[in-house]
Amino acid sequence: MAGTNRNFDGIEEGPAVILVEPQLGENIGMVARAMANFGLIDLRLVAPRDGWPNQKAKATASGAGYVLERVRVFETLAEALSDLTYVVATTARQRDGFKRVLGPVEASANMRARTDAGQSVGILFGRERFGLDNAEISLADDIVTFPVNPAYASLNIAQAVLLMAYEFLKTRDGQAETLPFAGPDFAPAPRAELVGMFDQLETALDVRGYFRPPERKPAQVDNLRAVLSRPGFSTEEIRLLRGVISSLDRFSPARPRGEGSPQDDPRRRPAPPSGKKAAGDG
Amino acid sequence: MAGTNRNFDGIEEGPAVILVEPQLGENIGMVARAMANFGLIDLRLVAPRDGWPNQKAKATASGAGYVLERVRVFETLAEALSDLTYVVATTARQRDGFKRVLGPVEASANMRARTDAGQSVGILFGRERFGLDNAEISLADDIVTFPVNPAYASLNIAQAVLLMAYEFLKTRDGQAETLPFAGPDFAPAPRAELVGMFDQLETALDVRGYFRPPERKPAQVDNLRAVLSRPGFSTEEIRLLRGVISSLDRFSPARPRGEGSPQDDPRRRPAPPSGKKAAGDG
Repeated sequence: MAGTNRNFDGIEEGPAVILVEPQLGENIGMVARAMANFGLIDLRLVAPRDGWPNQKAKATASGAGYVLERVRVFETLAEALSDLTYVVATTARQRDGFKRVLGPVEASANMRARTDAGQSVGILFGRERFGLDNAEISLADDIVTFPVNPAYASLNIAQAVLLMAYEFLKTRDGQAETLPFAGPDFAPAPRAELVGMFDQLETALDVRGYFRPPERKPAQVDNLRAVLSRPGFSTEEIRLLRGVISSLDRFSPARPRGEGSPQDDPRRRPAPPSGKKAAGDG
Repeated sequence: MAGTNRNFDGIEEGPAVILVEPQLGENIGMVARAMANFGLIDLRLVAPRDGWPNQKAKATASGAGYVLERVRVFETLAEALSDLTYVVATTARQRDGFKRVLGPVEASANMRARTDAGQSVGILFGRERFGLDNAEISLADDIVTFPVNPAYASLNIAQAVLLMAYEFLKTRDGQAETLPFAGPDFAPAPRAELVGMFDQLETALDVRGYFRPPERKPAQVDNLRAVLSRPGFSTEEIRLLRGVISSLDRFSPARPRGEGSPQDDPRRRPAPPSGKKAAGDG
């Protein structure tokens, strides 16, 4: 269903996530998990309050420990950004100054264009308590903020990382969403299969006197076919419905299937042409 | 910047969030916060394990208590869904069956179309431990799953609610992202302002012998103008840059501004035509 689904092994050549003076190890662990959810691996910490490594981060990261093992720690933000060509700074507060303010979608598109060109990019996240200061934001190219309810705008740091990583992964295949699995194929069945079902149902109804008075039969058939055409049933769905019709037609509460019912009664129509047993026709 | 930004008071006529047998009060509180972040208010609980109300939910919901106060509790999922016309069920696992599998973007577009038509819709979330069972999913119209790293697909319930609420709010103004604030307007300045800066800079450089040998001056001017044209500077940015040029031109380490410097020296060019002080020209 997705477009040109490039092979995704769970690791993106995606943006670095840079946490400035993170305070709680639990949050670093939750950030690692959010990164792993969307395939990011480059986590950088600037002067974490409680040093590094951090046992609480490790305990919280369950399953995303491989992100923590690669963490790099820097003393200054400038060092953490030194190899990056494009950096966005996340903030929930409006700032004065000359920076563009982007949403996650536009920022992700910018980052994807850079990573596709082989450049390294990064996303800055501030301290839990008060975010990024203006000097830190001045080291970024653009500001990113989230389309939130202005009356309740507080996202925690792991949620902010989650949304950015999610949006970045979504840019992987252009506009398509790269889902881990797809549903069944709902291509409408060839017309002959639909008409086969019409015939089966109309015959079963006809012998029961459903169409009456006789002169109304054409209009009743038209309506029945219209109702059954509109959904655009697939081959599989028609197979299931024919099994349902067959069961209603051939069996009864008094004579259920498998208890000497007249399955070979010559008055009955043959079973659906498909050799497979109809799904759900247990 | 957003399109037809309808008045957003922080409450969306958006989907109901239905949690089936939620186990931990903390998660219910986090769900309330994620809903509040994106303006959803209709939270429904089906047979919460620890009953209702739940003190841990209340403690975790800080600031989003107004969502918890409106919570409705139902004994069965069918009752919780009774007034809804379109329901999606979130799951991380592939299911057999006849349901479409959508991503959050497509599901949100479907829900927005319904809510715009005045219908009520809902999103189903399963238990923390094992999600939704097949009978529960059968009560939904479509399945939603997230475009995650298949190797690390586990989103917690509050994260799943966060992503769905985020995507739904994003559909509010079509494709535009409704950000809580915008950056400055970066419309490029009228050409005359750019040329005014060229003149100022070229004059300042000329008197310093920058252009040499003289026959190379036209090419040097062309290059200088090309570099300064490409960014498409705005009026505000040009005002700042002219202040910078003016400072470099008129003052020196030995004779800084405000210490008897020759501000009125007739050999110097007049100050920029704008009456306003240049930003940053402190």
